[in-house]
Amino acid sequence: MSERLLVIGGDAAGMSAASRAKRLNPSLDVVAFERGEHTSYAACGIPYVLGGDIDSIDDLVARTPAEHAENGIDVKMATEAIEIDTAGARVKVRELETGTERWEGYDQLMVGTGASPVRPPIDGIDAPHVHGVQHLDAVPPLLAAAERAEGTRVALIGAGYIGVELAEAFANRGAKVTMLEAGDQAILRLPADLADDLRAGIEGIGVELRTGAAVQAIEADRVTTDDGEYPADLVVLGLGVAPNTDLAVRAGLETGPKKGIVTDDRQRTSVEGVFAAGDCCVARHRISGELAYVPLGTTANRQGRVAGTNLGGGDARFPGILGTAVLKLCGVEIGMTGLNLDEATEAGFDAVAKTITSSTAAHYYPTAEKVRVNMVAERGTGRVLGCFIVGGAGSAKRIDAAATALWNGMTAEQLADVDLSYAPPFSPVWDPISIAARVVSEAL
Amino acid sequence: MSERLLVIGGDAAGMSAASRAKRLNPSLDVVAFERGEHTSYAACGIPYVLGGDIDSIDDLVARTPAEHAENGIDVKMATEAIEIDTAGARVKVRELETGTERWEGYDQLMVGTGASPVRPPIDGIDAPHVHGVQHLDAVPPLLAAAERAEGTRVALIGAGYIGVELAEAFANRGAKVTMLEAGDQAILRLPADLADDLRAGIEGIGVELRTGAAVQAIEADRVTTDDGEYPADLVVLGLGVAPNTDLAVRAGLETGPKKGIVTDDRQRTSVEGVFAAGDCCVARHRISGELAYVPLGTTANRQGRVAGTNLGGGDARFPGILGTAVLKLCGVEIGMTGLNLDEATEAGFDAVAKTITSSTAAHYYPTAEKVRVNMVAERGTGRVLGCFIVGGAGSAKRIDAAATALWNGMTAEQLADVDLSYAPPFSPVWDPISIAARVVSEAL
Repeated sequence: MSERLLVIGGDAAGMSAASRAKRLNPSLDVVAFERGEHTSYAACGIPYVLGGDIDSIDDLVARTPAEHAENGIDVKMATEAIEIDTAGARVKVRELETGTERWEGYDQLMVGTGASPVRPPIDGIDAPHVHGVQHLDAVPPLLAAAERAEGTRVALIGAGYIGVELAEAFANRGAKVTMLEAGDQAILRLPADLADDLRAGIEGIGVELRTGAAVQAIEADRVTTDDGEYPADLVVLGLGVAPNTDLAVRAGLETGPKKGIVTDDRQRTSVEGVFAAGDCCVARHRISGELAYVPLGTTANRQGRVAGTNLGGGDARFPGILGTAVLKLCGVEIGMTGLNLDEATEAGFDAVAKTITSSTAAHYYPTAEKVRVNMVAERGTGRVLGCFIVGGAGSAKRIDAAATALWNGMTAEQLADVDLSYAPPFSPVWDPISIAARVVSEAL
Repeated sequence: MSERLLVIGGDAAGMSAASRAKRLNPSLDVVAFERGEHTSYAACGIPYVLGGDIDSIDDLVARTPAEHAENGIDVKMATEAIEIDTAGARVKVRELETGTERWEGYDQLMVGTGASPVRPPIDGIDAPHVHGVQHLDAVPPLLAAAERAEGTRVALIGAGYIGVELAEAFANRGAKVTMLEAGDQAILRLPADLADDLRAGIEGIGVELRTGAAVQAIEADRVTTDDGEYPADLVVLGLGVAPNTDLAVRAGLETGPKKGIVTDDRQRTSVEGVFAAGDCCVARHRISGELAYVPLGTTANRQGRVAGTNLGGGDARFPGILGTAVLKLCGVEIGMTGLNLDEATEAGFDAVAKTITSSTAAHYYPTAEKVRVNMVAERGTGRVLGCFIVGGAGSAKRIDAAATALWNGMTAEQLADVDLSYAPPFSPVWDPISIAARVVSEAL
């Protein structure tokens, strides 16, 4: 009899693993359970559907259940895993339409249960006009609201990645958008000087950013904060996500920070035969050396691939994360990798950070825009620990050169020497990354 | 008496060195000789002046003679160095306006004589309507011609970097542009499949690209090639540049490939007390390990800075080049670093190359454009040897992540694992660089 791989969760991590395992070992019997209506979708694209840049949520689906079936993977839709019996090597599933429950046995199990928007215990947070953004299945009602958002008042709670992307989306729809952020800036991980540039961008598209505004209560027509009341017809949560690990915790899988599942570098959990990947997991941060919960689509796909390789009989290891991320708000681009100064200090590094101001093209080139780069490095070793960028078009993807430098443990001095590219439409002669590396290396 | 540093050449390399040396050692007596009318200018910006994107050639001047004077550097303009007497530690200079000649003694000498457009011995190549593009001083007559180029016929001889940039410039001016290239594609270093995409871009802006068209003769109204005659009112040379090293050769300085000056990694020439940097020099290629002549603005600035640090009493070493370069032709962007498959094979590597096709953003994102990446890696070690990119807006600067990988000697498999950034406006979940690295690593 062929070996049986069960997969819980039909999105990036789960289905990457399933696809990879099946490709490496076609004799595997692969069955996946997805409680929702979609498989393998790009949750990161949701803000662009809401903003009207993308026509349909169907565009975000990379592979449908039927396409997975063509590849020999049996996806059971609208089927929720409700219990894992690790001793019996079986999973109890419930068909959501009928309520029927049954046990399914496995030889190997892959957990890719993802994450859900954080919903703190605030009065009114479960009201129907309060939306989270993570699962594709939750999008249609929010999209309907977005499409008639012109002239309405939208409150975004939390000015993190999703909040910033949604601010643009609803501004595009003609809504009057207010971001309510408990902290003192948007994207809390950004160095303060870079956050100032982001604030200018946010305000530049007519969005109000209220910082120091922790939400106390949500009513049908307003949000009450520490900082006063804000009228709101629609409320969208952007307070981050938390891993969906109740099932894993009940099954006795070891968890770490924020209750993310802990795995080894082969994506094996603490229980033999059970693998996990993606937004339900923590990962080893290559700079801090610590386990961290940094849910990102890239990591989900990468970890899923590693898990799938191992499940399919190969040997792969996940090499850790840097937390590299990019996002944009109209003309303002943001890139980050590694640790900021506070995080580096907290992780025990004697660190220095410097911010430089440069331009995205030669100063005389007509498309040149301001870009600021903050680079963090360790005293003594000189090693680069983090890099943060905020600037005009062409800024954000520069972070990849810094990420590659961090990946290799380069010193700031070494990074300053790298033969990066230059032509007037793309860069000053010294790329902003080189300049930042030079300046921080001189400050060490 | 203070030590005296003479600098020959007032552009990037020479003046970077002068400025750096003076900053580190303010007691230095620094005198620079520039035969032309400008100092410290961005030659790379010339095509954009010709195309009308930039208003004035003055915008390309980073630092004028007066600004250098403020920093304590005495620049003698319109003064040509005509002989170096290394035994006597002196340079003979000629004031071009008066013809007066004199000897100037030095303690240390910096040679930054740059390069000039290659002018092969073709009938008519020295006619007044045949222009080279390198020195700012040569720009005004060409700019005057560009400004009245509408409807005229412009022939570009050579479809290299400059040729491609000028094609766009003259097309912008409304000229009918024909590129005449002896080889079989534009930018000969590009892998052929990527060059096809570039050709489509060139033809897409209405420029005719004639390959296999070696020029035999230039007349007032036409250019005759192997491939027939082409009418031309204006001819611009884009056959590359050759180092200005007659002076250095006569002084006995060791030269290497293409007669570029050979230096050690401190930018010291074969003669004690004489330094050199920039377009007049060769440099060590980090992948081939060989000396190569790759004149680029980035290298000139970097080498100038290293020379200046050492001249000023510090200690710096130039770590070599990868030949990283970017350019654009309207919507088509090009990036390259390291060796292509032919160059790698010639350098003795057992190399493999693979081309992948991906997109500059998530496939569903409205600005997504096609990008192709060709990656070269070594069998056995798996090391990445080169990377070439051709694609739509947002493609070219991705080369910096690859350059940083090459700089660190990463394998393709390691590069595929790097935590590069992703968000729908910037990249598919797997960045094209990651995909190319994965595909070439699997082919090894």
